[in-house]
Amino acid sequence: MPASPIRKLVPFSDAAKKRGIKVYHLNIGQPDIASPQCGLDAVKKADLPLIEYSHSAGILSFRQKLSEYYKTYGIDVNENEIIVTNGGSEAILFAFMTCLDPGDEVIVTEPFYANYSGFAKLAGVKTVPIVSKIENGFALPPIEEFDKKITPKTKAILICNPNNPTGYLYSEEELNVLAQIVKKHDLFLMADEVYREFCYDNCQYHSVMHLKGLEDNVILLDSISKRYSACGCRIGMFVTKNKNVYAAAMKAAQARLSPPTYGQIFGEAAIDAPAEYFEQVLAEYTKRRNIVVDSINKMDGCLCPNPKGAFYAVARLPIDNADKFCQWLLEEFSIDGKTVMLAPATGFYSTPGSGTDEVRISYVLKEEDLHEAMHCLEEALKVYPGSTRK
Amino acid sequence: MPASPIRKLVPFSDAAKKRGIKVYHLNIGQPDIASPQCGLDAVKKADLPLIEYSHSAGILSFRQKLSEYYKTYGIDVNENEIIVTNGGSEAILFAFMTCLDPGDEVIVTEPFYANYSGFAKLAGVKTVPIVSKIENGFALPPIEEFDKKITPKTKAILICNPNNPTGYLYSEEELNVLAQIVKKHDLFLMADEVYREFCYDNCQYHSVMHLKGLEDNVILLDSISKRYSACGCRIGMFVTKNKNVYAAAMKAAQARLSPPTYGQIFGEAAIDAPAEYFEQVLAEYTKRRNIVVDSINKMDGCLCPNPKGAFYAVARLPIDNADKFCQWLLEEFSIDGKTVMLAPATGFYSTPGSGTDEVRISYVLKEEDLHEAMHCLEEALKVYPGSTRK
Repeated sequence: MPASPIRKLVPFSDAAKKRGIKVYHLNIGQPDIASPQCGLDAVKKADLPLIEYSHSAGILSFRQKLSEYYKTYGIDVNENEIIVTNGGSEAILFAFMTCLDPGDEVIVTEPFYANYSGFAKLAGVKTVPIVSKIENGFALPPIEEFDKKITPKTKAILICNPNNPTGYLYSEEELNVLAQIVKKHDLFLMADEVYREFCYDNCQYHSVMHLKGLEDNVILLDSISKRYSACGCRIGMFVTKNKNVYAAAMKAAQARLSPPTYGQIFGEAAIDAPAEYFEQVLAEYTKRRNIVVDSINKMDGCLCPNPKGAFYAVARLPIDNADKFCQWLLEEFSIDGKTVMLAPATGFYSTPGSGTDEVRISYVLKEEDLHEAMHCLEEALKVYPGSTRK
Repeated sequence: MPASPIRKLVPFSDAAKKRGIKVYHLNIGQPDIASPQCGLDAVKKADLPLIEYSHSAGILSFRQKLSEYYKTYGIDVNENEIIVTNGGSEAILFAFMTCLDPGDEVIVTEPFYANYSGFAKLAGVKTVPIVSKIENGFALPPIEEFDKKITPKTKAILICNPNNPTGYLYSEEELNVLAQIVKKHDLFLMADEVYREFCYDNCQYHSVMHLKGLEDNVILLDSISKRYSACGCRIGMFVTKNKNVYAAAMKAAQARLSPPTYGQIFGEAAIDAPAEYFEQVLAEYTKRRNIVVDSINKMDGCLCPNPKGAFYAVARLPIDNADKFCQWLLEEFSIDGKTVMLAPATGFYSTPGSGTDEVRISYVLKEEDLHEAMHCLEEALKVYPGSTRK
C-alpha cells in the first residue's frame, strides 16, 4: 500500500527537529481537543475481570446506543444494521470488499482521503477519480461528468461529507444529483461522514441515509475518531440497510473476530456527551478556520475556499511543487526558530500532475499557534526558491 | 471470507437456549481466567486528555517493553523489529500481504486455525495443507511430505506452535527439519506462537526465532489475547528481523493508521505480571487438560492425543459426521437439562472429507463444569443416532 502524503514527510520532520526548529503540525488530522469526560470516565470505571472478545458486530448495548445517536440526525438504523469496525479504516475496507468484486471500479470525488487508494488496492478494486475544482470551492462535479466515468465495471460512488481534505459540505441538491446517478446505474453509494459534527456557519449536514428509495444502495462509513478526539480508540462503524451487504460484511467482521473492547466502552459512554461539549468544539474550530482562511486569502497569489465542514482546508499557493515546498519548509526554512508542516495535496489526487500547487491544512492547533503557523507560511512564501509569484 | 467453524454453530446454540438447556461452551478460544491485575489497573490509571493515534508500529515504550519480554524467551529482537497489530489476525494478514504475491502458495500444517484461510483469501494467496495425523499425535509430517508440496509458487511455510487446534508442541528437532526445508527452498517461515505461555509437563517451547541463520526468513506472529486473557484488547505483534519485510509491513500498518491505544496501555503493563500469575494459570490448565484427555480416552471408540501446549485438544469420536453431531448436541440432545457445544474439526481442514469424525475441545471452563461437560459428551455418544460404534 502507498504511504500516505502525511507519512512521506516524517523523515523531514525529524530533520527539522534535528535543526532545533519548532514545527507547527498542520499536516495531520489528529484533533487536539479533549475527549468528552464521560467517555474517558467510563473506561476508568469499567470493572472487567478479563477483556473478552466482543460480538463481531460490536457490543450490543453500544450498537443500540449508536442507533439512538443516528436517530438524532434523522438516520433511521437499528442495531442490526450497524457493524462496529477497527476504525473508519476497516469500514472502508469492508465496503470495498463486500460491494465490489476485484477489478470493479468505484468513482471517488478528487481530491480524496489518501487511504482510500490503499484499501482499494487491498480489495483489488480500482478508484476512478472525478475532479472537483478549487475554483468552484470543490463543489460536486456536474452530473454529466459522472456519466462520462461510468463503465460496465462501475459498482459504486464514494464521497466524503463533510470532506477530507477540502472541508466541502455537500448540499441537499448535490446529494439528490448523486441519488439520480446511483438510481440510473444501480450503483452503491458509499459515504464517509465521520465529520458530521463539524459543520460551520449554521450550514446543514445532509446524510446519504436521508435519501429516499436508496435504502439498498447506501453504505454509511463512520468513526468516533474525530467526533470525540478519540483516534486511538480505533472505533468505526459500517452501516447499511442492505441485508445482503450486511451479511457479507459480517463474514469479514467474524474473520477478524471483534473490534476493541475498551474503545467500545469509551464510544458508548461518549454518546452522552453534553450539547455544550460540541458547542464549544464548534466555536473553537470556527475561530481556527477563520484564522486559516482569512490569513491565506490575504497572502499574495494564494486561494483558500472557505470550508463549511470538517477541520481541513485546501489552499492553492504560488509554488512550483507542493512536495518540494513542504520538504523545504522542514529542511531549510525557519523564521524565529519556527516552521510549519503541511500536507502536500498531491497525495490526495490520483490524477498525475494534479494538486502540485495545493496543500492541505488541518486546523488542529490552538489559536495563538495557528497565528504563528500562518506567519511562518507567509514568510516562507516570500523566500521559497520555487516561488511562482510574478 | 468463510465463516469460522465456531460461528457456523451460533444459530444452533441459540436453539439450545430456546429449549431452556444449559450449554457448556467448549467451542471457543476465549479464556475464562482473569487478566493480570497490573494490566487492568494501568488502563484505569491512564490519565489521557484525549485518545490520540499511536505510532503506526505501536507505542514506542510498549515495543521496548516487548523487546525485553521476548529476551526472556531467548528471542533477540529490538523495538524496530516489532509492529503492534490489531490482534494476531492483522499480523497474519500483514505476513501474507508482505511475503507473498497474489497467486503464491503458503504451506500450512493441517488441521489449522480456520481464519488462516480467510486472511489468505483476502491477500489473494493459496494455502496448501500438509496433513498431520491424529494417530501420530499431530506431529510434524516428515520432510519428504513437504518436498512433495513445494512448487515454484511456494513462498512460505506457516506453523502454529503450540498448535491451535491440536495443542501440539513442536520439538527442537522438528523446528530444525523446518529450517532445512526453508533454507533449501529459500522460503519464509511464519510461526504463530501466541500460546507460548501454555506449555505443560515441563515441556520446552522452541521458537522459530531461535533458528540460526534464518534471520531473514522468519516472521513471528504473536498476540496478547491468550497470554493475558485479553482477546478484546485486539493487540497482536508482527515481528521480523528482515528489513525489507518490515518496511513493507509498515506501509500496511500506516494505511490503517494505528493499533488501539487502550489495548497497548494494558499490554505494556501486563508484561510485568508476576511469575505466580502464570504458575497458577498453568496449574489450572494442566488440571483441565487432564480432565478432558483422561475422560475422552476412557470413552468407547474415542481417541484424544495428550496435548503439550495451548488449551485445545482434538479428539476422534465414533460419529458419522462432526458437523451433524455438534448441531445435534445443541438442537436435540440434553441430559439433566444440559448439553455441550464443540467445534467440528472439519472447519480446521481444507482437504475435503477430512476431520469428519473429529472435534476440537477448548478447555476454557472451570474444573466442575468440565466434568459436567465430559459427562454430557459421554452420554451423548451413547444415544447419538449417527454413532459408528460397533
